[in-house]
Amino acid sequence: MAETSVGVYLFSRLGELGIKSISGVPGDYELVLLDMIPEAGLTWHGNANELIAGYAADGYARVSGVAAFVTTYGPGELSAYCAMAGQYAEYVPVVHVVGYPSTVAMNGKMIMHHSLGDGNFGMYQKMVEHISVASTVLMDAKSAASEIDRVLNAMLYHSRPVYIGVPVDIGPQMISSGPLESSLQVILPKNNPEFEVKAVVEIIRRLQSSKQPVILVDGVDESEALIELLKIPYFATAMSKGFTERIGDSDLVIIIGHYPSDFNTGEFTTNLQEDKVIDFQRLALSIAGHQYDLAAKHLLPRLIHELSNLGSIVVERSVTWDPYPNDSTPKPDKLTQDYLWAQLGKYFQPGDFVIAETGTSSYGIPASNLMNVSDVRMFNQTVFGSIGYATGAALGAFIAGKEDGSIKRGILVTGEGSLQLTVQTFSDLLRHGLNTTVFLLNNDGYTVERLIHGMEASYNQVPMWNYSKMCETFGPSFPARYYRVQTGDELLELLADAQFVKADCTQVVELILHKHDAPMSVKLASKAVEEFNKSKK
Amino acid sequence: MAETSVGVYLFSRLGELGIKSISGVPGDYELVLLDMIPEAGLTWHGNANELIAGYAADGYARVSGVAAFVTTYGPGELSAYCAMAGQYAEYVPVVHVVGYPSTVAMNGKMIMHHSLGDGNFGMYQKMVEHISVASTVLMDAKSAASEIDRVLNAMLYHSRPVYIGVPVDIGPQMISSGPLESSLQVILPKNNPEFEVKAVVEIIRRLQSSKQPVILVDGVDESEALIELLKIPYFATAMSKGFTERIGDSDLVIIIGHYPSDFNTGEFTTNLQEDKVIDFQRLALSIAGHQYDLAAKHLLPRLIHELSNLGSIVVERSVTWDPYPNDSTPKPDKLTQDYLWAQLGKYFQPGDFVIAETGTSSYGIPASNLMNVSDVRMFNQTVFGSIGYATGAALGAFIAGKEDGSIKRGILVTGEGSLQLTVQTFSDLLRHGLNTTVFLLNNDGYTVERLIHGMEASYNQVPMWNYSKMCETFGPSFPARYYRVQTGDELLELLADAQFVKADCTQVVELILHKHDAPMSVKLASKAVEEFNKSKK
Repeated sequence: MAETSVGVYLFSRLGELGIKSISGVPGDYELVLLDMIPEAGLTWHGNANELIAGYAADGYARVSGVAAFVTTYGPGELSAYCAMAGQYAEYVPVVHVVGYPSTVAMNGKMIMHHSLGDGNFGMYQKMVEHISVASTVLMDAKSAASEIDRVLNAMLYHSRPVYIGVPVDIGPQMISSGPLESSLQVILPKNNPEFEVKAVVEIIRRLQSSKQPVILVDGVDESEALIELLKIPYFATAMSKGFTERIGDSDLVIIIGHYPSDFNTGEFTTNLQEDKVIDFQRLALSIAGHQYDLAAKHLLPRLIHELSNLGSIVVERSVTWDPYPNDSTPKPDKLTQDYLWAQLGKYFQPGDFVIAETGTSSYGIPASNLMNVSDVRMFNQTVFGSIGYATGAALGAFIAGKEDGSIKRGILVTGEGSLQLTVQTFSDLLRHGLNTTVFLLNNDGYTVERLIHGMEASYNQVPMWNYSKMCETFGPSFPARYYRVQTGDELLELLADAQFVKADCTQVVELILHKHDAPMSVKLASKAVEEFNKSKK
Repeated sequence: MAETSVGVYLFSRLGELGIKSISGVPGDYELVLLDMIPEAGLTWHGNANELIAGYAADGYARVSGVAAFVTTYGPGELSAYCAMAGQYAEYVPVVHVVGYPSTVAMNGKMIMHHSLGDGNFGMYQKMVEHISVASTVLMDAKSAASEIDRVLNAMLYHSRPVYIGVPVDIGPQMISSGPLESSLQVILPKNNPEFEVKAVVEIIRRLQSSKQPVILVDGVDESEALIELLKIPYFATAMSKGFTERIGDSDLVIIIGHYPSDFNTGEFTTNLQEDKVIDFQRLALSIAGHQYDLAAKHLLPRLIHELSNLGSIVVERSVTWDPYPNDSTPKPDKLTQDYLWAQLGKYFQPGDFVIAETGTSSYGIPASNLMNVSDVRMFNQTVFGSIGYATGAALGAFIAGKEDGSIKRGILVTGEGSLQLTVQTFSDLLRHGLNTTVFLLNNDGYTVERLIHGMEASYNQVPMWNYSKMCETFGPSFPARYYRVQTGDELLELLADAQFVKADCTQVVELILHKHDAPMSVKLASKAVEEFNKSKK
């Protein structure tokens, strides 16, 4: 009977899911495990710290479908819980593998380093239960394969993070590789056909009778075909100005894989009325507030199929407003955000990956006409909204894009306050040769926070760094260019520079903006946040 | 009746405990709260990220007694759980204040940003219960004062971290300031006098009859007087070579505020036999394995008092071995660790704060004769052992030392692998004018990990940075010097340089060491770690 080690079994399963490389930070409880990554045909991409490793896994999973990262027990894993919670909130399937102390130490209740010093070892797993859909610590090699499969299947079903602890003495133990012959459950169980048909009929009826339908979509593959077919206005985020202004006129809002959270509805000011909403979620459909156990993965293709057959019913509504009002912004002397987003929109090309940080960037990008460019991958962390995320996630997304050949240019758009949280990511962006172009909005602090509260408060200021030295510090042996842009002219000149557009090495563009300047949508939303925070009911 | 806001009440309590400044990262749920810090007479010292803020609070508390830091709900707080767990493991009293969404949003189960998107808000507090001794979320202003006092008193009693969530609408609400007239319970309840006397008698009896007593001590103020009085060999960490070699000969081991964990007993190779140990812990005494509810805080002064009275019984044992064998290391051409630690030992002066990172630094420092210099404050994170900790903790410790005037020179000793986790701390070290001297051991990777497993493994290598550009990147407007040391001569020359010794600005000393070189104690302990990890029972 063929045998393999527990560690190689685990990594073989990850390889089966399409994972080619794994992020993380080494630690003594996990070193033996790291030896098994190349044994299973995968590659290790270490990071400067665990939060970055977790963010990178998030970005990798959003491109490749699934990701994994490895940390060490205690300090290592705890430093990545913020990344895990973000994956949980945003339905990103990631395996967090944690190197545990030996079963001898744990069963003997010894006082080990990285523990809390009390002979207990189960507390971190208990913490993680709140931010994962399944977890296990492999205390026995005999049950390791079935435990690994159980947890990975849960990740695939829920599309959310899971946690696998591997004690240092269990990883190398030999087990049967037999279970590897049966693949994991990568396909969601079919919907109940009767319910599915009823739902499709009802959706078509509502589409036919609606006068101003819109679609709000977030990262679901099938949604593109639907948009193509219906030709009705759509928005990749409710943060865009057009959406917040026009949603009120609409009599039918189709939401696909998107949350109606406070951030992406302009702090609830959009008044999404339940009775005009059709909401496709991962495992459920909601029509005017009624829930059905229907997975969007199967329901959407069925809907598209039926709509195609009924050619005559195809809904077509012209856009009645200008979705990119910024495009007519006149060229300013000192650079402004409205002008920046309008021009950046023209810069994007097919094959670009565009990762935008929560804040003015995530509001600004949708106000550009990026969305008109085909074959662009873009995402941000809409609900969880952790600043520092975009830089780490860009790393993982760009690596995944390089692995599968789908990326042409990797573009990160972030603010300097956010960049400072995870700046050491540059070390990896440089050495992996990802030729990242970073648009760094330097507006002397946390501008979104200023607009919410504390316009001039010192706590909203961040230290002034010298960003022109950043690449030299973090990767002195790798090619990099730095640009500083203060005026409208300088921006136009840069965006017309063929070498810059080619993006054949790491490029940092520091954009000097006024500390109170922001896209109009940010100003409105920030005002709404402060009002809501103060509200009594 | 005098009134104050909930926020000012909280910060006034923190001021009462001697806290002068608070670290953290701003976030929209906490901005209103940050306005109240100066109102209560305290200062805000923002950080680049939350992990650094938590580590800085740890360092601050180890110098000032107590510390606090503020983060925002969700991503902010989660990023600092590693710091909190370290505080819990190492008995460091720190208040983690978290800005929560409004009670309106929470009671309404709204889908808020920074949540997990499901209308729940209690999960982060549940996670934190595993790494804190008390927690509260102030859902009602009426009970806010008593809740704050309850949680702070728990922190003082257990000397461990606590968690206070302040919803954005609760912080500004006015409450009676009456409770502020009664102070918090800063003094531990007295021991049972009868038990205390019995214990003292028993300890003296054991001291009198022992032939080779040693003391192992860690950060308890009263221990200094005892060492002074007994004049027996003592060790600040069991990681020092003298201790691991001589502990076997000893017939009485007095442990004060120290854990017998794997790291600081050389992976259990020291064989600390229970029947020869007297262990003073915060709330308990253990004599030869028998536990007594006696707090060291009261017991130690009583013991010292009785020992002083009985002049004739004073134990005095001469050291029978050379505790600093490195001092005779001949000057090498290429710098070695043994030579480095011997010379660094001579560099230290009264008034120095020396913060050493887990790894070769925490093993190397005790092998230097730093311990012979009076009025030096030093610490490291012995049990929890999170790399990256020392840089953040140094920031907080040096700020506290500057506030109370006790610091002359702030010295950080760390490796380049560890530095990379929290390198943005330099931004704060520079702008707060702390004149830090950093001894940065650049040995091309995680040397301790190499010695444990993977001597040549690529995962134990870290990217090569240009450390000479670090200060210019993170604080271009502040004075800084950089030195590169590769030989024994260069080290001697630097340590004799009057300007360097004066340390009147930030100084980075990059020490180039071979990737396999380490103090002998590290080599022994690392070997033991790998053996233990493989052991079957």
